[in-house]
Amino acid sequence: MEIKSITSKKNPIIKDASLLNKSASERYENEKYIAEGARLVLDAALSGVYIEALFYTESAGKKYKSYIDKAKEKAKDIYIIDDHVALSLADTKSSQGVYALCRMNKKGGVLKGRTVVLENIQDPSNMGNVLRTGEALGIDTFILTGECCDIYSPKVLRASMGAVFRANVISEKDVNKVKNLLKKENYSLYGSVPLNTAKKITEIEINTKTAVAIGNEGDGLSDEFKHICDALVIIPMLGRAESLNAASAAGIIMWEMVR
Amino acid sequence: MEIKSITSKKNPIIKDASLLNKSASERYENEKYIAEGARLVLDAALSGVYIEALFYTESAGKKYKSYIDKAKEKAKDIYIIDDHVALSLADTKSSQGVYALCRMNKKGGVLKGRTVVLENIQDPSNMGNVLRTGEALGIDTFILTGECCDIYSPKVLRASMGAVFRANVISEKDVNKVKNLLKKENYSLYGSVPLNTAKKITEIEINTKTAVAIGNEGDGLSDEFKHICDALVIIPMLGRAESLNAASAAGIIMWEMVR
Repeated sequence: MEIKSITSKKNPIIKDASLLNKSASERYENEKYIAEGARLVLDAALSGVYIEALFYTESAGKKYKSYIDKAKEKAKDIYIIDDHVALSLADTKSSQGVYALCRMNKKGGVLKGRTVVLENIQDPSNMGNVLRTGEALGIDTFILTGECCDIYSPKVLRASMGAVFRANVISEKDVNKVKNLLKKENYSLYGSVPLNTAKKITEIEINTKTAVAIGNEGDGLSDEFKHICDALVIIPMLGRAESLNAASAAGIIMWEMVR
Repeated sequence: MEIKSITSKKNPIIKDASLLNKSASERYENEKYIAEGARLVLDAALSGVYIEALFYTESAGKKYKSYIDKAKEKAKDIYIIDDHVALSLADTKSSQGVYALCRMNKKGGVLKGRTVVLENIQDPSNMGNVLRTGEALGIDTFILTGECCDIYSPKVLRASMGAVFRANVISEKDVNKVKNLLKKENYSLYGSVPLNTAKKITEIEINTKTAVAIGNEGDGLSDEFKHICDALVIIPMLGRAESLNAASAAGIIMWEMVR
């Protein structure tokens, strides 16, 4: 395949691509996002993500040759870019100089199997970590509701270690529509809370029609969300309950859903 | 109590204190460390940490009055410091301007109850997170072996949300001494590994004489460590095993130890 070169930041392909790291609205308007780093780019390629363009610097081309060679096979266009051009695509301080312009999966996910609902998860590293851990453990569906951070942001992509590329994600801001979706498929919905009056997570029956919801890092689940749950559940703890962080709590809950 | 003021970075108290954020060796030579932030400082005070000095800027004194007033009761000396002086004690970019000069607990911990061994955990946020989650879940003892990061570093203190102040921690670099310590007290020692040939963590008996070890983020447990284990255990996963991060794996293991 022909490899073109880009030597100016003002190249329209670069200008357009660099905007995608700036905001979620840019990404959704264009239905595209940037994956950064040799490993993540290869992961996108191997996960069936449509790669509109692969960009890399000359030095990255040598250093990450084995990654880039495989990614090239899946890319529509390939560009060698100057180091200063790479900077305008970079989100990290010490960028590797390898980027993929990826097309979003706009179809969205389909509700199936063990399901985790995330409400108002706003920290990108928590979001990424939950998707990563959920994938490892075998969670089938993620529903994102309320005001969650964008899963196509550079930080979520990195923290997820590529799980975003493969995750079955349904985005539905409206809590009541989440309820209807789950009810239509006869799901039981549990909301995790740090309240001793809730049922222990170890004592509920979990099957392939179970959804468990996890709320915001600081505030937990909203009252609105708690009202649509069939029951509230708690991770019973011997120690100081307030000091389990969101990602750790999510990890334990997802583990209980599959163990 | 008399409140003194410090207006120069060159004040010897500030010069000495600022060195403590620079390196672990400075901290261990002086047996002191810095806690930063209103909440963490109060947490140190309430956890029985000996506070040699409390420092805060005038604006922090107003903004975090309720925290500082309580912390003052436990501090030996109290200083109001100028904003530019505060910068030399700060580890974070947006420092709140509240610091405590804390004395280390040099006595070290005592082996008791459910025990987690951490070998070569080098990422401060992982270390802090494991201590925080372990405290929440009720882990009784942490043994740090090999080359772990320093628990009194600013990043570990923050990530632990103060759990460092209260954790029962035994530091013993020598793996064989860890073995002897555990054997003397009739502990069973399990090493967690991502190997399908290992026993499932759900299938071993866990009691108050059980220790489970977690290895380095990238490399896992060392061969030397695996040799001292009674058995190796795995978190059985349906999904992609390689993508569980160290802190998430540790969270699930600790949960299995107490559930």
